[in-house]
Amino acid sequence: MKKTMLTHATVITANDQNEVIQDGAVGFEGAGITYVGPTPDDLSGYDEVIDLKGDYVLPGFINTHGHAGMSLLRGYADDLPLQQWLEDKMWPLEAQFTSEHVKWGTYISLIEMIRTGTTTFVDMYDHMDEVAKAVQASGMRARLCRGMIGLCSEEERQAKLRDAVSFAREWHNQADGRVTVMMAPHAPYTCPPEFITQIVEKAEELSLPIHIHMSETEWEVGQNVKDYGVRPVAHLEKLGVFNRPTLLAHAVHLTDEEIDVLANYHVKVSHNVVSNLKLASGVAPVPKMLAKGIHVSLGTDSSASNNNLNLFEELKLAAILHKGVNNDPVAVPAEEALRMATRYGAEGVFQPDTLGTIETGKQADLIVLDSHQAHFHPAHDPVSHVVYAANGRDVKDTIVAGSFLMRNRELLTVDEERVIFEANRMFQQLKR
Amino acid sequence: MKKTMLTHATVITANDQNEVIQDGAVGFEGAGITYVGPTPDDLSGYDEVIDLKGDYVLPGFINTHGHAGMSLLRGYADDLPLQQWLEDKMWPLEAQFTSEHVKWGTYISLIEMIRTGTTTFVDMYDHMDEVAKAVQASGMRARLCRGMIGLCSEEERQAKLRDAVSFAREWHNQADGRVTVMMAPHAPYTCPPEFITQIVEKAEELSLPIHIHMSETEWEVGQNVKDYGVRPVAHLEKLGVFNRPTLLAHAVHLTDEEIDVLANYHVKVSHNVVSNLKLASGVAPVPKMLAKGIHVSLGTDSSASNNNLNLFEELKLAAILHKGVNNDPVAVPAEEALRMATRYGAEGVFQPDTLGTIETGKQADLIVLDSHQAHFHPAHDPVSHVVYAANGRDVKDTIVAGSFLMRNRELLTVDEERVIFEANRMFQQLKR
Repeated sequence: MKKTMLTHATVITANDQNEVIQDGAVGFEGAGITYVGPTPDDLSGYDEVIDLKGDYVLPGFINTHGHAGMSLLRGYADDLPLQQWLEDKMWPLEAQFTSEHVKWGTYISLIEMIRTGTTTFVDMYDHMDEVAKAVQASGMRARLCRGMIGLCSEEERQAKLRDAVSFAREWHNQADGRVTVMMAPHAPYTCPPEFITQIVEKAEELSLPIHIHMSETEWEVGQNVKDYGVRPVAHLEKLGVFNRPTLLAHAVHLTDEEIDVLANYHVKVSHNVVSNLKLASGVAPVPKMLAKGIHVSLGTDSSASNNNLNLFEELKLAAILHKGVNNDPVAVPAEEALRMATRYGAEGVFQPDTLGTIETGKQADLIVLDSHQAHFHPAHDPVSHVVYAANGRDVKDTIVAGSFLMRNRELLTVDEERVIFEANRMFQQLKR
Repeated sequence: MKKTMLTHATVITANDQNEVIQDGAVGFEGAGITYVGPTPDDLSGYDEVIDLKGDYVLPGFINTHGHAGMSLLRGYADDLPLQQWLEDKMWPLEAQFTSEHVKWGTYISLIEMIRTGTTTFVDMYDHMDEVAKAVQASGMRARLCRGMIGLCSEEERQAKLRDAVSFAREWHNQADGRVTVMMAPHAPYTCPPEFITQIVEKAEELSLPIHIHMSETEWEVGQNVKDYGVRPVAHLEKLGVFNRPTLLAHAVHLTDEEIDVLANYHVKVSHNVVSNLKLASGVAPVPKMLAKGIHVSLGTDSSASNNNLNLFEELKLAAILHKGVNNDPVAVPAEEALRMATRYGAEGVFQPDTLGTIETGKQADLIVLDSHQAHFHPAHDPVSHVVYAANGRDVKDTIVAGSFLMRNRELLTVDEERVIFEANRMFQQLKR
């Protein structure tokens, strides 16, 4: 197996000690990290040695919630009330989506993520075969789920469940382990309780985690109380969801008691800060969740409500928003925000042993930031610069499982020009 | 004079009709725009014709509040309460600043701004000669002011006022008109009332506008009430500040009555959304101000509290934050946010007749965005893409007064490598 060493780098490990190694090096053999430490004198055992001249190396970012196919609807509808946005704009177009639409929407998303330093993403959508194939071909890592909206006939619900199960059987742990799967009831307000129970049973049978939207809007919480007499957390707890490892998307509207319940079950939360603001959903109680030990990671949601997949935006906004709205300048400090983008993300995809930090034995999912730019100077505090000053566009190299997907800003596994062409073609075909 | 034409562009004019011209062109001769419209068939009268192949052309962004020299303190102190940040971290280092520090801090800032599409900036600081010289040499446009903190002896106050006046006399309308000046009492809580009055008198004498920080924090508003019996707006009104054209920085804590007063006086406001969140100052009532017709523009504040000068971050955040915290998905729509970065910025620097839109007769302050990237597609709504999907790093060309300061991402007027070296050297010299 090829042995590669990145040398003379500023290595931001995101490990337990928040270690930053100046003039550091990261070595990897095949998919795995084999060396982390100072740049060694003897580099003779390596097939390739890359001198990074002080550039930053970080664990690849983990985007824990999204709908890659929806990038096809970027900018199609903004500045609208949520229900109008969904019912008049998103759903009528999504209803026309074929697997071709999802394919090219996903490829657009893959390009954005690779270019801005995301190495693992969570996706909940339809036509998931196309998503998995694109992940496999591009070299990315993803935790994928067939999202199931239950607002349809029993027959359709069962067809969706069968589809989700067969997708899981076909794709879980495929693409050299880069593709894993979760089971995804869409949300408490879009799935009848018995449908959620059936999905949980299948997740149990397949030993898979659950991914679900929850408490994104106040309306939805009120609706849950009206329909089932309890708020969403108690509802999902009763349905046994939290007996499986669970990743919640959004979790904007929570009481302190609900936070305690989530903490007790070790439920993971994907904080979609840009999307929540843009759709006027509100601001999630992130400092409270973090204080209770909940692993809160970062998600972009889709480009239809973001409108990009540049996780550096979520990183900075998660670090500053909660200070501003809670009148607390020490809320979510830079190191904690960086953990949200990395190791808490690894918890969010239930792979903390292999992802999220730069440590020997973990997967070589790495990004390199070009620090030879004015906004990285004076070169005082690299973690501060990553969180508060940098941008996804500073990423020059993206490495997944030891393979370069982008090198010196050149994409190596995806044909950007063709993808842009096809995505526009597919969008033009839709009846608007 | 050289005649240049940018052709086959997506021209986002930001004019009264929010016109976007597909396959458009912008022509300029010397510093001024001479043509805006469809790409003409006959281009024979032009010395240089640049085919932009669909890239976006916009008015250069206007950053209406900052302290360029402070980029030297980027990342030096984050995640601290405001007073501790100021008194223990910022002020002791700033006290050591010489004109050399301000020079190299300013150059770092100029690079950031040119690279991310800002063509005019407001600066309030000390050693302003250095800032003006750097603006002149770099080709940028700026509205500069010697900031005056009055928490010192009467002798020192008068020395600062003399310095501000002589700076204004020397530099106002210099550098081919690219440098203009304002008079800047630092803030109501840092200037005795009689000092503010003296500054207003000088502004009157010199026919210059006023730039001042106001109501950034709740503490400061309470202090004003305690010291002077009224909130800051009434206090400054009484001191005659608003009889001069005035640009306020921050304006976070305002009552509805105060907003009415500001609207009546046509006071301009610089919204520093990133800095206000990071320092936990709060969220300014921007939708209310806009509804009253106040020209609210965007400011980065300094890199010590931001921590960069990429105004695209302010643009997107101004568009999404007020939706999220006001539970209003239609607050600050994309076109309005873009006006805040452009024409309202021109109002903020009191040059609405020459800056802020792409129209014949205005200055050729233009930026070109590389739209041949995944996150600009599908190519449905260019204004949405600029506000919600783009980033300052998409800027490939920056033009001020008809001169390229950056072309194809290459800086033409500033030596980035040397500036980075000198900025680090100056930072290392400081006693910490």
